[in-house]
Amino acid sequence: MIVVMEKGATKDQIQHMAGRVEALGLRAHLIYGTEHTVIAAIGEKREHTKESLESGAGVAEVVPILAPYKVASREVKPEPTQVVAGGLTVGAGVMGVIAGPCSVENEEQLISTARAVKAAGATALRGGAFKPRSSPYSSQGMKEDGLKLLAAAREETGLAVVTEVMSPEDVELVASYADVLQIGARNMQNYRLLEEAGRLDTPILLKRGPSATMDELLLAAEYILNEGNPNVMLCERGIRTFESHTRFTLPLASVPYLHHKTHLPVVIDPSHGTGHTYLVPDMAAASVAAGADGLIVEVHPNPEGAFSDGYQSLTFQQFEQTMARVRKVADALGVQIASQSRRVTV
Amino acid sequence: MIVVMEKGATKDQIQHMAGRVEALGLRAHLIYGTEHTVIAAIGEKREHTKESLESGAGVAEVVPILAPYKVASREVKPEPTQVVAGGLTVGAGVMGVIAGPCSVENEEQLISTARAVKAAGATALRGGAFKPRSSPYSSQGMKEDGLKLLAAAREETGLAVVTEVMSPEDVELVASYADVLQIGARNMQNYRLLEEAGRLDTPILLKRGPSATMDELLLAAEYILNEGNPNVMLCERGIRTFESHTRFTLPLASVPYLHHKTHLPVVIDPSHGTGHTYLVPDMAAASVAAGADGLIVEVHPNPEGAFSDGYQSLTFQQFEQTMARVRKVADALGVQIASQSRRVTV
Amino acid sequence: MIVVMEKGATKDQIQHMAGRVEALGLRAHLIYGTEHTVIAAIGEKREHTKESLESGAGVAEVVPILAPYKVASREVKPEPTQVVAGGLTVGAGVMGVIAGPCSVENEEQLISTARAVKAAGATALRGGAFKPRSSPYSSQGMKEDGLKLLAAAREETGLAVVTEVMSPEDVELVASYADVLQIGARNMQNYRLLEEAGRLDTPILLKRGPSATMDELLLAAEYILNEGNPNVMLCERGIRTFESHTRFTLPLASVPYLHHKTHLPVVIDPSHGTGHTYLVPDMAAASVAAGADGLIVEVHPNPEGAFSDGYQSLTFQQFEQTMARVRKVADALGVQIASQSRRVTV
Amino acid sequence: MIVVMEKGATKDQIQHMAGRVEALGLRAHLIYGTEHTVIAAIGEKREHTKESLESGAGVAEVVPILAPYKVASREVKPEPTQVVAGGLTVGAGVMGVIAGPCSVENEEQLISTARAVKAAGATALRGGAFKPRSSPYSSQGMKEDGLKLLAAAREETGLAVVTEVMSPEDVELVASYADVLQIGARNMQNYRLLEEAGRLDTPILLKRGPSATMDELLLAAEYILNEGNPNVMLCERGIRTFESHTRFTLPLASVPYLHHKTHLPVVIDPSHGTGHTYLVPDMAAASVAAGADGLIVEVHPNPEGAFSDGYQSLTFQQFEQTMARVRKVADALGVQIASQSRRVTV
Repeated sequence: MIVVMEKGATKDQIQHMAGRVEALGLRAHLIYGTEHTVIAAIGEKREHTKESLESGAGVAEVVPILAPYKVASREVKPEPTQVVAGGLTVGAGVMGVIAGPCSVENEEQLISTARAVKAAGATALRGGAFKPRSSPYSSQGMKEDGLKLLAAAREETGLAVVTEVMSPEDVELVASYADVLQIGARNMQNYRLLEEAGRLDTPILLKRGPSATMDELLLAAEYILNEGNPNVMLCERGIRTFESHTRFTLPLASVPYLHHKTHLPVVIDPSHGTGHTYLVPDMAAASVAAGADGLIVEVHPNPEGAFSDGYQSLTFQQFEQTMARVRKVADALGVQIASQSRRVTV
Repeated sequence: MIVVMEKGATKDQIQHMAGRVEALGLRAHLIYGTEHTVIAAIGEKREHTKESLESGAGVAEVVPILAPYKVASREVKPEPTQVVAGGLTVGAGVMGVIAGPCSVENEEQLISTARAVKAAGATALRGGAFKPRSSPYSSQGMKEDGLKLLAAAREETGLAVVTEVMSPEDVELVASYADVLQIGARNMQNYRLLEEAGRLDTPILLKRGPSATMDELLLAAEYILNEGNPNVMLCERGIRTFESHTRFTLPLASVPYLHHKTHLPVVIDPSHGTGHTYLVPDMAAASVAAGADGLIVEVHPNPEGAFSDGYQSLTFQQFEQTMARVRKVADALGVQIASQSRRVTV
Repeated sequence: MIVVMEKGATKDQIQHMAGRVEALGLRAHLIYGTEHTVIAAIGEKREHTKESLESGAGVAEVVPILAPYKVASREVKPEPTQVVAGGLTVGAGVMGVIAGPCSVENEEQLISTARAVKAAGATALRGGAFKPRSSPYSSQGMKEDGLKLLAAAREETGLAVVTEVMSPEDVELVASYADVLQIGARNMQNYRLLEEAGRLDTPILLKRGPSATMDELLLAAEYILNEGNPNVMLCERGIRTFESHTRFTLPLASVPYLHHKTHLPVVIDPSHGTGHTYLVPDMAAASVAAGADGLIVEVHPNPEGAFSDGYQSLTFQQFEQTMARVRKVADALGVQIASQSRRVTV
Repeated sequence: MIVVMEKGATKDQIQHMAGRVEALGLRAHLIYGTEHTVIAAIGEKREHTKESLESGAGVAEVVPILAPYKVASREVKPEPTQVVAGGLTVGAGVMGVIAGPCSVENEEQLISTARAVKAAGATALRGGAFKPRSSPYSSQGMKEDGLKLLAAAREETGLAVVTEVMSPEDVELVASYADVLQIGARNMQNYRLLEEAGRLDTPILLKRGPSATMDELLLAAEYILNEGNPNVMLCERGIRTFESHTRFTLPLASVPYLHHKTHLPVVIDPSHGTGHTYLVPDMAAASVAAGADGLIVEVHPNPEGAFSDGYQSLTFQQFEQTMARVRKVADALGVQIASQSRRVTV
């Protein structure tokens, strides 16, 4: 922690702050610059340190040196984490492809999609049974009936099931059907939910909030890891910016950045990240080239008739073409797409 | 709803989309422009209409004409809503001032703050007992013990109590102590929590998420209103932008914009909205001039020693000076600050 | 300058960087933390220092301590700068109000507006003769003919003339007619133009670019100051964010922030800052309460028929009402609106 | 153009607006919805139409149907444009790779870089002779001496020369040395410069401003095209968002989006787009997979000692490795990197 004093800070203010640093159990090291005095606070970081120093009289700025997350950090665990969930393997050189409809709508829709995405090379099936919707007037999903259809689709295809959980009290229920629990972007800082998810060892797909910083995303992961669940996949699904020609702005530099900072695998969602079907195939291929450990893609038998997200869903044929492009890039770069899923039963 | 067809859309595609509009129970009205054909979909809006049409072949864009929220809308209720919660009155020409520490830390801290902010003109006391924290290693608050201290401070000062609730299962508990439940920015789209809050009639202070659009904020309010709780105050607390010299960017134009669109009162949080103590007084005064119905301000007996948010908290003296400035502007513009609180007991 | 080394930085890398710091004429001061080594680089800052150190092997981050601007800084000149330009006075407790049409269209339009805004209390007339337009198919302005009309309006009303200059080669021409040269948001980093403007002593109204940081704005001012022109007014006109219900997001915290960092006066443009007529009056009043030294507002005799920006222009009557609200706030806060303009001729 | 009237718009207001639409030479077509009346304005779009209608009494919104740009549009010219400039070919299935230092510093630096990037497969040399710098205290470049060194490097290597022009008066000079004129992000809306560049037929590399919308970028291109120069390459170099772990946010979805809207080729700048050397290789590969027609990459013999941008420059070896990765993706996707440059002399 570096405490930068204001240009006009008095000797008393400097002494006072040095005292506060020491009172926090840190060692204060003063550096007298040409214009500013700087206090280096040496020692292990404690809770509230930064906030507590920041409001001191005469303080211009407090610069943290250590990252705020620990268990998620690559400094702590240099080798990449590989998450395995049923037929899905993600990370450490193996790429997983999760595909399926935004919402589970009915058996026919789900089973036909599961078959189609498996045939095209997906290794997991996505599908929302509990749906967070911006409007109270939109359908909130099929709930447990949807989970049952997902499990049935897994039974038939061997695809792992990835589905969202929205509330702490649903965690147990959803985990009893799913191979991977998705925590959505709106819930990235729903700490109760994170803690509940941390008490299981079911793998978690944690989506970045649309205005979350990288530190916030990694701290959200830390909530889960800290409770004891090591199986966390991070998902970049686009951020909110001034751009309106896409639904969100998809920053693929998140992939190499996160690989630099954390051992957790990184999955990209080009469907939400762009919001338009016609942009998905190129961004899926680009994600692989950026080093992504996984993809999650919306696919629907008839996007025009979808309950939700039809405008960003691929048809079966479009998904097949996307996978062909994805596979070319993966092969060229020596990335394995783990398509040989084992048969799994709950 | 206006469906704009692509320039090259075929006659078949246009006919198909017109058919889809009719199938949704709307009337399709075709307009042949110089370059584009446009289909006006006339009738009451239904769920999924926009999404469903957007993915149609040959469709360039779907432009909604009606706002997605209803009960929150000024079209539905032209006169402004006034929310009364114990000693706090907000809206319809009366301004409420909510002040207090970020976190409830102990009795002495809370009671002294309550007395000081009341003396300076505040009408409600804020203080967090359940604290959402970005890091799992930060203190999560005093929980029910904090609520008890808040109730005791109300007992002594008559100030209304405003405090955050983070999870649906805590709603009942928090409501048994508080006059106003705050739903924080991170939980603006925690729909279970919104629904639970909607089942009470305790007033709700709903904070805008840092990347929420105005429509999303009003739809979140709609979740509460739709369950039957009419006492919703909207709170602008700053949005996330590229600016880093302030913690968030505080867009005061939200005040007249929201007044134009909704009958719900609008409260400004200049503490989170700027993130720096020295910016709070001017932004508090500016909020009043912009027409805000309320203020929520962080005040602490000793910001340097605060558990959280010290860098954006005012001392008692700074709050007194801020209130003096706020009162000048309010008086000049004929806005009443309801400082004469009634004595309230739970 | 603080050079933070990576956790795993080798002794050699640390020695190498310390050597580089010394080679730049700075003193290197090493601090060995629990996990990271930090090098404080002491001495006057030089060009390229940060950039040059940042790319060193083993360097995690370089944190500058000194602001990059100098002459604009309040550390260098603590007392506020007051800019006087004909009938317009801005800064140091005096507020100036600049009003008029977006584009100069014809004599009748301009003179009637000049009379109306003067009657309502404006102290300067704005009007574009050279217009930067996003599209090559939009009208580019009346050019010198427009300047002549502005000068004629000043002749009659005594209002100072504020008008935009877009290109270095026009600076002399525009300055021969105008009291204040406006440098628009799109040209904030047109360095040739800034330098040319710096060679005059005609006051400059420098608008913030919609994605410029505060440091970039102050460095742009520094280009002008550095050439010898001390008469710079900074103008906040809104930034580009994800918000689309306003044309730009107007961050009024810029006012107290800039007052803290610089002695230059700060003018707010609530017309561009919101992009909607109905939001302008409240934001104008809020600007004054936030401490703004001036306002620049678009006013048009018939906004519906305006060549440009009609949707954000006030009618004469709306401007009069806005000024009434502005004056109430200014009076309450002891801010003088210098409406008694002297008669000025070129 | 669709004019949406407010819910409460009076019959008179509707008639008045319909009249205004007709007065603009358009045909007004009224649609009476359940709650809103909508006026479709049919005919070719004219200047000021949207702005002019937007300020009408009773108007809620004006929705443009036609894109504001014409010549740049794919509707006007469906086949992709290929730009050829000396040894550089960009577009229509051929990818160009532009590499070199941020600033031209001296002969040795430039020649060694030119040789190295050519050996690694680049087809053009970049290097700034005129440098736009945020601070007046930073070096502004070698100017014409730098241009001479660039021309000498071309003489020896056959690489095309890409260099920035900052001001209209320098266009002729720079064009006498360069194969491609770069217009930087800060100058994207410097209309005089765009017009001047449009009077040549030297290819232009037009960089997107960090807060420019896609429409604004295409309108800036339109300024050049409209003057008669058809050789425009668009360059995405990152936008300004709340993200601070990268210097800018690089939205690769710009590539397929622009390919959908315009026939002009799209070049990606992963150096400015990320701001960190270690992120460049993956983002370069991802750009190719996203369909980019070209790359522009900063390379320096000794990034630590670079005058500028060292922290985002690649060493020769890093560039070679990047090109190996880029080539794998290009080969896999059937994209040709035109590395066989012809010998060119000025």
